[in-house]
Amino acid sequence: MTRTQVGIVGAGPAGLMLSHLLSLNGIDSVVVDNRTRREIETTVRAGILEADSARLLVDTGVSDRVLRDGHPHEGIDLRFGGESHRVDFRALVGESVWLYPQTDVFVDLANARERDGGDVRFGVSDTSVDVNAPAIRFVDSDGVRQEVRCDLLVGADGSRSICRAEVPEALRMHSYREYPFAWFGIITEAARSAPELVYAHSPRGFALISQRTETHQRMYFQCAPETNADQWTDDRIWEELQSRVAGPDGFTLNEGPITEKTVLRFRSFVAEPMRHGKLLLAGDAAHTVPPTGAKGLNLALQDVRVLAEVIERALVKNDDDALDEYGPRALDRVWKAQHFSYWMTTMLHALPAATDFDVRRQLGELRSVVGSEAGSRFLAEGYTGCWPA
Amino acid sequence: MTRTQVGIVGAGPAGLMLSHLLSLNGIDSVVVDNRTRREIETTVRAGILEADSARLLVDTGVSDRVLRDGHPHEGIDLRFGGESHRVDFRALVGESVWLYPQTDVFVDLANARERDGGDVRFGVSDTSVDVNAPAIRFVDSDGVRQEVRCDLLVGADGSRSICRAEVPEALRMHSYREYPFAWFGIITEAARSAPELVYAHSPRGFALISQRTETHQRMYFQCAPETNADQWTDDRIWEELQSRVAGPDGFTLNEGPITEKTVLRFRSFVAEPMRHGKLLLAGDAAHTVPPTGAKGLNLALQDVRVLAEVIERALVKNDDDALDEYGPRALDRVWKAQHFSYWMTTMLHALPAATDFDVRRQLGELRSVVGSEAGSRFLAEGYTGCWPA
Repeated sequence: MTRTQVGIVGAGPAGLMLSHLLSLNGIDSVVVDNRTRREIETTVRAGILEADSARLLVDTGVSDRVLRDGHPHEGIDLRFGGESHRVDFRALVGESVWLYPQTDVFVDLANARERDGGDVRFGVSDTSVDVNAPAIRFVDSDGVRQEVRCDLLVGADGSRSICRAEVPEALRMHSYREYPFAWFGIITEAARSAPELVYAHSPRGFALISQRTETHQRMYFQCAPETNADQWTDDRIWEELQSRVAGPDGFTLNEGPITEKTVLRFRSFVAEPMRHGKLLLAGDAAHTVPPTGAKGLNLALQDVRVLAEVIERALVKNDDDALDEYGPRALDRVWKAQHFSYWMTTMLHALPAATDFDVRRQLGELRSVVGSEAGSRFLAEGYTGCWPA
Repeated sequence: MTRTQVGIVGAGPAGLMLSHLLSLNGIDSVVVDNRTRREIETTVRAGILEADSARLLVDTGVSDRVLRDGHPHEGIDLRFGGESHRVDFRALVGESVWLYPQTDVFVDLANARERDGGDVRFGVSDTSVDVNAPAIRFVDSDGVRQEVRCDLLVGADGSRSICRAEVPEALRMHSYREYPFAWFGIITEAARSAPELVYAHSPRGFALISQRTETHQRMYFQCAPETNADQWTDDRIWEELQSRVAGPDGFTLNEGPITEKTVLRFRSFVAEPMRHGKLLLAGDAAHTVPPTGAKGLNLALQDVRVLAEVIERALVKNDDDALDEYGPRALDRVWKAQHFSYWMTTMLHALPAATDFDVRRQLGELRSVVGSEAGSRFLAEGYTGCWPA
């Protein structure tokens, strides 16, 4: 039996960052995860970091690798009617975002916790939690049963959270929206097709042209949710992607061998309340967003930033009301991000039941947004997470 | 048989304003309408005029009555979560809108045409048009068959346009969206409840608190499309309206006898092209918008402003390409207005199939908009029609 102040289920970016922030305030924590470190490190996940997220990694001493290996993006292209329209974040809100894979954020955090002597147990199994007499029970990677007793329990265990299920049904509200489409994602061995992310609206549906390294690029296109990636040849994938960005300006994608292809389904989801007694939920355990807004990782980091602050007040300063603040403060941003993600999604995707009116209205909306400093800045605020307080 | 340069079907604001603008350029027109002048004058219709629309009436010498009898509104209240949030048009975009009934716009235009000797035939019947050898045929109010031959034919004959039907089916595209709700509108004999329009989002659905005079007020609340107004008592109507604006700030509506109640259905609609040979469509004949954005009358006036300009170039300066410009120029604004009207409608109404997610996302959107200068200004640009060119 181990005793700690905060027991954290989930060693993704939310759980590890929380553990890191707590340790800076002299608060002990133990983090457990069913996955091995290697499993998480080899799950390739894309990522756009808001400037505040990048600063959190650097300023709290996790790592400054994002500044060296990440790529600052000062804008995106909204492409519609076959023409690109740049939304200049730097000019509009004075901030950039960073293209930096979530996998690398994990590696930085796992290294930092190891460096600082943090207690992180990867590769455990049979994990269960007790929210009344707070504890995490699991079988460790050596096959030994373990119990971690704690003052507070944090569920940072992702979209299939076991912690979330501990909030009694009568007290919880799960809000969600399914989308009638998915993303077909590829990684290709090719040079960049554009310097910044291209969000393309087209009669055939949405496409996102992203970047990864000098030699490997990431691209997505909207597809039916039941699409089987294996049935698509490289030729067919390129034909589809090219058709969605084609325009009178002659923009075309640099093609290359496709080294990875997957179909990504997504939904919008929020679990409320984010606190139940001594249990607190953070990151994907409490909410998921469509990838169109690039908000998921940033919301998780934002959650634990607030959470670390209220936990310190609760445990160190004995401020009994501090924990009450967590949900309302986190949710204000969560719902703004949910709206932003929904907005980007519905503005850019072809909706299966769309009429001519809907498509032309989308184009009217896109023209309004890019034609207006206010509209562009409203979008830039959402994308960079620079919502006025 | 009469000969004129421009034959105009429909003596609403679009048709009369066009006739007025053409006459300023020395171009003859004849306007015909199936309704009598008295019928139109006694159809009470609300109206919000964009500043540009008010200026058009004043600057072209129609009337300056809007400046005397209209009410400048420098903002609106967005009310949600039981709290009001003012969107200050004057501060955001430097413009006001004018509360001035459409009925009064009609009266001003009809008086101006009469004053200037314009040829307007009210109360005709059996109207038909020939688009190939342009002509309007009808039976005049004295029961005499008439024919007006013209160089150009304008369909300004409203949402049930007979002119629109002359565009061959193979060449036309009608885009539309139905909404699964309607507005229950009342006029009440009471003092104003608020100095400016209040657009209220509530768990029970949308409500709009408007003003008419010192003693009579206009209010609306979202209802099912099949609602029968006669089955609603005054008490029930007030209960519904009060519940939709109630909040911790104690805002309540001033109640009084309800002197009029109607159920208003609406949809979004655009007929393209707006030109077919010598036929040109304007106003409601070419497009209708939900009333939430207060755009209908303003779009009609904007259409004929463009139309008067291109007709002058076509007929006076023999610029054969001028008419080609009409559709694209008018439609750019039409689709921005369609998007704005759709945005206001879907942001504020309770959608019948809405999940908890949808309602909370709406609130996240409303908080984002009022919390951001950019978001508020983007909305103000749409409401005042001050879209950047």
